[in-house]
Amino acid sequence: MPVRLDTADSDFDARFQDLLDSKRESSQDVSDTVSRIIADVRARGDAAVLELTNKFDRTNFAAADLRISPEEIEQASAQVSEEVRTALQTAHDRIRAHHEKQKPEDHVYQDALGVTLGTRWTPVDAVGIYVPGGLATYPSTVIMGAVPAKLAGVERIALAVPTPGGQISASILLAAQIAGVTEIYRIGGAQAIAALAYGTETVGRVDKIVGPGNAYVAAAKRQVFGQVGIDSIAGPSEVLIIADGSANPAWIAADLIAQAEHGGGAQSILVTTEKGLADSVAAEVDRQLSLLPKQQIAREGWEEFGAIITVASLEEAASLANRIASEHVELALDDPQSILPAIRHAGAIFLGHHTPEAIGDYVGGSNHVLPTARSARFASGLGVLDFMKRTSILGCDPTSLSALAEAAVAIAEVEALDGHGRSISIRLNR
Amino acid sequence: MPVRLDTADSDFDARFQDLLDSKRESSQDVSDTVSRIIADVRARGDAAVLELTNKFDRTNFAAADLRISPEEIEQASAQVSEEVRTALQTAHDRIRAHHEKQKPEDHVYQDALGVTLGTRWTPVDAVGIYVPGGLATYPSTVIMGAVPAKLAGVERIALAVPTPGGQISASILLAAQIAGVTEIYRIGGAQAIAALAYGTETVGRVDKIVGPGNAYVAAAKRQVFGQVGIDSIAGPSEVLIIADGSANPAWIAADLIAQAEHGGGAQSILVTTEKGLADSVAAEVDRQLSLLPKQQIAREGWEEFGAIITVASLEEAASLANRIASEHVELALDDPQSILPAIRHAGAIFLGHHTPEAIGDYVGGSNHVLPTARSARFASGLGVLDFMKRTSILGCDPTSLSALAEAAVAIAEVEALDGHGRSISIRLNR
Repeated sequence: MPVRLDTADSDFDARFQDLLDSKRESSQDVSDTVSRIIADVRARGDAAVLELTNKFDRTNFAAADLRISPEEIEQASAQVSEEVRTALQTAHDRIRAHHEKQKPEDHVYQDALGVTLGTRWTPVDAVGIYVPGGLATYPSTVIMGAVPAKLAGVERIALAVPTPGGQISASILLAAQIAGVTEIYRIGGAQAIAALAYGTETVGRVDKIVGPGNAYVAAAKRQVFGQVGIDSIAGPSEVLIIADGSANPAWIAADLIAQAEHGGGAQSILVTTEKGLADSVAAEVDRQLSLLPKQQIAREGWEEFGAIITVASLEEAASLANRIASEHVELALDDPQSILPAIRHAGAIFLGHHTPEAIGDYVGGSNHVLPTARSARFASGLGVLDFMKRTSILGCDPTSLSALAEAAVAIAEVEALDGHGRSISIRLNR
Repeated sequence: MPVRLDTADSDFDARFQDLLDSKRESSQDVSDTVSRIIADVRARGDAAVLELTNKFDRTNFAAADLRISPEEIEQASAQVSEEVRTALQTAHDRIRAHHEKQKPEDHVYQDALGVTLGTRWTPVDAVGIYVPGGLATYPSTVIMGAVPAKLAGVERIALAVPTPGGQISASILLAAQIAGVTEIYRIGGAQAIAALAYGTETVGRVDKIVGPGNAYVAAAKRQVFGQVGIDSIAGPSEVLIIADGSANPAWIAADLIAQAEHGGGAQSILVTTEKGLADSVAAEVDRQLSLLPKQQIAREGWEEFGAIITVASLEEAASLANRIASEHVELALDDPQSILPAIRHAGAIFLGHHTPEAIGDYVGGSNHVLPTARSARFASGLGVLDFMKRTSILGCDPTSLSALAEAAVAIAEVEALDGHGRSISIRLNR
């Protein structure tokens, strides 16, 4: 059964802390294995990637198979049903329209001293997007990664996707085509991350790698960080629903189940001011689970990691939400705006009764690659800025340099960097 | 002697690649040692931090000494000369004025379907700024870290600075006071990073850690990434100067020396269209080095890592600059604007003959914590956005949910996430 907590209980603090601290992933230390894989790919390139891929994905690829050809992409895409094609195109168009607004503007100006100061944004040249394969087939994740990269102006957008048993979903290839991916490699795991970071004969080196993956992928991203940029280290998905008496228990239950069906440690939490709602949601989850075709993963996830917390007020709910810093926060309230400003740490917030989190996963327009495992305390969801970088611009003329020289030289002296001070004073006419 | 290359040489490509690949830091693998330190600090808190600090910094601290008291800060600050106080205040005010313009704006709107979409920025609650101690005393780095954090709205700004032999520069404490640092810990190394990431009895846990450090600090930041946010992994500093015949060889030489005097692998590169300038700069560097009070570090740095590259055109210079992706790029040209758009990968760009890089280190207004080791390909300098995170806002009403439902449910089906589809369809009135 999921945990039931009440902020009025005397042991609430300790039990809530346990919930925060609970591990939802096996903390398998794969860093040594991953180090060896990265070193091998750096040393042997394609040969290492092929050997590892054929072993882990049970395939029989030659080097020429690693990159999926334009013809294969075209053929596979053509097999996707018209309904799914339309849906992916709709998702793409809405996500593109929203992310378009994230494009930053350059700003160069002169201050009162005549110093030119500025900020200029430029795209990363080449990025790799990792998309998990195997159990899950997520064309939506391809779109969420590639659209902001494309908008940023990235020239090469490479996709790495493992194909266990050689199988790949046609919808992944179609999504890549729609979103403007420039190359697709059928490789996964740490070997994919290593190949993207260092390049091989077949795999072009990129400058930044984004996207979720398993423990090996996460460890590899951590190790290649610095050689390339990475987004955050992804953990299991999670939702926190804040609901009051105005919420529909059946709808809340459906959202809790939708999160739990991701499996792999995915967590669903309900925080509510209404004890009655807590009870009816718990009953609804059981009822709806029994109607779900593949209920086992969702049931196990809900029972192992689910939680229902009753609170005295919405303010208290917001305070817990900030401590949990969930990837997704739903405000199942008639007036979500009333507590929206109080929710400071969340990957994404879903307003009101008619915004199930799943709409944001696909077609809402916002990104579904969001900070997990409490990292919304410091991290943001994927966006256009992840594929750009900011260059500072600074320009002095003789007058403004003279005006700034005394202060700069004084600090250089305190820092015992005489050469710094001299590079300024040598330019002064005295 | 520094490397001399010319793009016209037949072996240029290979030698330039060697320059790009050259290691400027000992690639000492300290990750196992750092893992043990982090585990120890997590397990034993203050006791471990004290033991490690007293050992590595040759101090004899008790737990009560780890945090520097307001009285000590006040006393030390009062000892700083008026000249340096004014200089640090000037630096602070200019850096604050420039970074103020980096504050992002929230944007929430309704699209044509009536879907509410938005982006909201909120500050990180607590950050840790690491400032190296020992050989270097860099009050400017304190200001560069704390000012954008303060502007972002961060409540707790903690400083960690090692105090070898118990010594700390009064200017560091004054800079912290000016910039609004809320707490200062006299600890360094991996133990400081572990204490900030996990908290101890004395050290308050933070959500993000920024700032440069040695190999142990870098490895520790890599390992705690995920538990907290981090900025990039810093490497040795570097400058690339692009100069034509209009440049003053003595000024260029002074800038090359200023970079080299950082030591620890710092690199100075001149790229010029004028062979004559290349020769006179080389001679000037030798001449000026012999006049520098502490010339050894700068001379060794210049001889071991310096490079002078002659090119056929400024376009060729820009192309090399993009491959090098230097932390600092100086355009020592009469018309720097002419090639500015062509420089796509650089931490900061300094325009014209009167903008020595050192002015940006201190009082220009831009940040001096910048991407090194070619990471300007994907990373930016420190700024206000590093201390904030973006939350997506999504809101549907019954009408807009209905409009989006079909596409969302179709994608959920392709992804075999029935519960996702049901969380949408259960809300539709049919």
